[in-house]
Amino acid sequence: MSFAADSVGVVTPQKFTFEQPLQLECGRILPRFELMVETYGTLNSDHSNAILICHALSGHHHAAGFHHEDDKKPGWWDACIGPGKAIDTNIFYVVALNNIGGCNGSTGPISPNPENDNRPYGPDFPLVTVRDWVKTQKMLSERLEIDVWHAVVGGSLGGMQAQQWSVDYPDALKNCVVIASAPKLTAQNIAFNEVARQSILSDPDFYHGRYLEHDSYPKRGLILARMVGHITYLSEEAMKQKFGRDLKSGKFMYGFDVEFQVESYLRYQGEQFSRNFDANTYLIMTKALDYFDPAREFDGNLPEALAQTKCRFLVISFTTDWRFSPSRSQEIVNALISNHKPVSYMDIEAEQGHDSFLFPIPLYVKTLHNFLTSTLQPNTASEV
Amino acid sequence: MSFAADSVGVVTPQKFTFEQPLQLECGRILPRFELMVETYGTLNSDHSNAILICHALSGHHHAAGFHHEDDKKPGWWDACIGPGKAIDTNIFYVVALNNIGGCNGSTGPISPNPENDNRPYGPDFPLVTVRDWVKTQKMLSERLEIDVWHAVVGGSLGGMQAQQWSVDYPDALKNCVVIASAPKLTAQNIAFNEVARQSILSDPDFYHGRYLEHDSYPKRGLILARMVGHITYLSEEAMKQKFGRDLKSGKFMYGFDVEFQVESYLRYQGEQFSRNFDANTYLIMTKALDYFDPAREFDGNLPEALAQTKCRFLVISFTTDWRFSPSRSQEIVNALISNHKPVSYMDIEAEQGHDSFLFPIPLYVKTLHNFLTSTLQPNTASEV
Repeated sequence: MSFAADSVGVVTPQKFTFEQPLQLECGRILPRFELMVETYGTLNSDHSNAILICHALSGHHHAAGFHHEDDKKPGWWDACIGPGKAIDTNIFYVVALNNIGGCNGSTGPISPNPENDNRPYGPDFPLVTVRDWVKTQKMLSERLEIDVWHAVVGGSLGGMQAQQWSVDYPDALKNCVVIASAPKLTAQNIAFNEVARQSILSDPDFYHGRYLEHDSYPKRGLILARMVGHITYLSEEAMKQKFGRDLKSGKFMYGFDVEFQVESYLRYQGEQFSRNFDANTYLIMTKALDYFDPAREFDGNLPEALAQTKCRFLVISFTTDWRFSPSRSQEIVNALISNHKPVSYMDIEAEQGHDSFLFPIPLYVKTLHNFLTSTLQPNTASEV
Repeated sequence: MSFAADSVGVVTPQKFTFEQPLQLECGRILPRFELMVETYGTLNSDHSNAILICHALSGHHHAAGFHHEDDKKPGWWDACIGPGKAIDTNIFYVVALNNIGGCNGSTGPISPNPENDNRPYGPDFPLVTVRDWVKTQKMLSERLEIDVWHAVVGGSLGGMQAQQWSVDYPDALKNCVVIASAPKLTAQNIAFNEVARQSILSDPDFYHGRYLEHDSYPKRGLILARMVGHITYLSEEAMKQKFGRDLKSGKFMYGFDVEFQVESYLRYQGEQFSRNFDANTYLIMTKALDYFDPAREFDGNLPEALAQTKCRFLVISFTTDWRFSPSRSQEIVNALISNHKPVSYMDIEAEQGHDSFLFPIPLYVKTLHNFLTSTLQPNTASEV
């Protein structure tokens, strides 16, 4: 099988091990941790063309390309990463990782707990925060000898990590790209997360998070969590166009099997997701979302929180995103403007709701590509 | 204890029994059924001042007043029904009932099934539709000797029943009041219902709906169903004002106990609801919502479906309702206008989202009161 010309092709993840103890925001210490990483493109001689990709709730290190020749499904952001794509691997060295607490190879709830006979951490894995993730990403940068990222980029929860980078390590990034994100969750956002969590926590197969030791799995809870999440990822309009009130069998069945196509879709999505994702990781990710609020230590004052940033910003929202609506992005933009920080903002017309950030929408792709390439140093450009 | 001057005071429900078999839309027949009913105010001599109240998902016959002197909680629409209130019991004879399939005294899943040794129907109770309900409400009207309702009134799922009345029995009502409702559910509406259903259906304590026979109850599922439903009843703004990001203990606890006030509220609401509501009824109600679509037999053409109506309409929506947004009400209004039907429409500024219809918002109360009293016959008015 050959890949498209704009694909990064076959990629191989690498594992990085950090043996020093990691102090976490919650007060606990992780004695050691590992990060699963993928890179695409080539690092230039002065290490100035590196872009860090931060993943969202269910993402991981496999952002682009394929894991083997016969792989049918590319990485989760393959639409935007590759030669000539929005994040152009002909120009940039792109680094993607799985965050700690994840379930795709980095240290998380399914990893062995050295403090408990190497049994899986399960519920004993600490509740990590966006700030903790950024701290580990900074440690990874040092390992990769990248002092300054050309850009830190992320959508949704990934955009929160990008924001946190600009606050915590203002000298370590030149550009910050915050897509379909928010400066903090609203009560409604938290409420949806809480329903997802309660779905998992109340599943009898959850065993207080020790399902692996019980040879069990809270599949029902995870399916429900994903179903409710999925509704918030799609716009009402996209759902209407995709399913409307179409019936699976063409007529009402007056029962609880699937009647409407949208039911079938949601159940399928939930089912698929529940096969590949760890329930404790889902809980950790939703809590990281809830906790994120860089303005918290500034008494809720977002401009003050962003006052110390030194990078350029690109903020992008999507017209039909109701999970993190354009007005949430505008809160970030306004806080930056009030600080006289360099910020570009685009509200992209798109039908796919919150999920829009995963699609190669022409104006979005162009905006992203232009922003990332417009501040390239001459020596970086010469590498191309 | 004495009640407020605008309270209907202590009311006593009545049970009406219908021994004739009822043909249902799903094709099945209910051999007999009972309806629990409450009435407020006095029926005038020519029976022209009667108003029928149709309830929403979790409603019932107890719409106003108290069941005993020490009752702390009045009926679910007490804010709008009583002497001098929006639906004025000094003028009107108000009839409220619990629909079949319900769990508050009318025949439903917890009722004895005469075809199965009088064991509870449970999952054998048929999936009833809005049209079925309206048919039983028509039978009730005949029992009450009300040939023509002055008005049929309902909010949300209740507003769907009011619409169905205008289509199925055009000569049997003078006015139709459709509040915070829609002409049919969208894919997103159905999706939320499906999550609620799957929460219940996948609860191991559900026992395929035969939990009563197993001395069990799908409490977890019902809590989740209500939590997700509740989010859709409140506006994002109301949630923000009510809870914001307030913490229960003032600081992050880094655990899965309640951290944010909104979590506490949702869990409490779910918990309370699960104590008083039957899970099979919840399933039936959500399916009735999904099925409702008076335009279905007119090839999706709503104006055609409403062409046969003869009553005046009042359609009311609320600015922050995102479950059934104002645009959904406007679909009904536009379909009526294209038919040259008499319709008044108000989009009421309100913060409470879908739940707004339960509150005595001044403009809403006045609109409702004016509409209902403006077509009173002189002989009705003289009764006052």
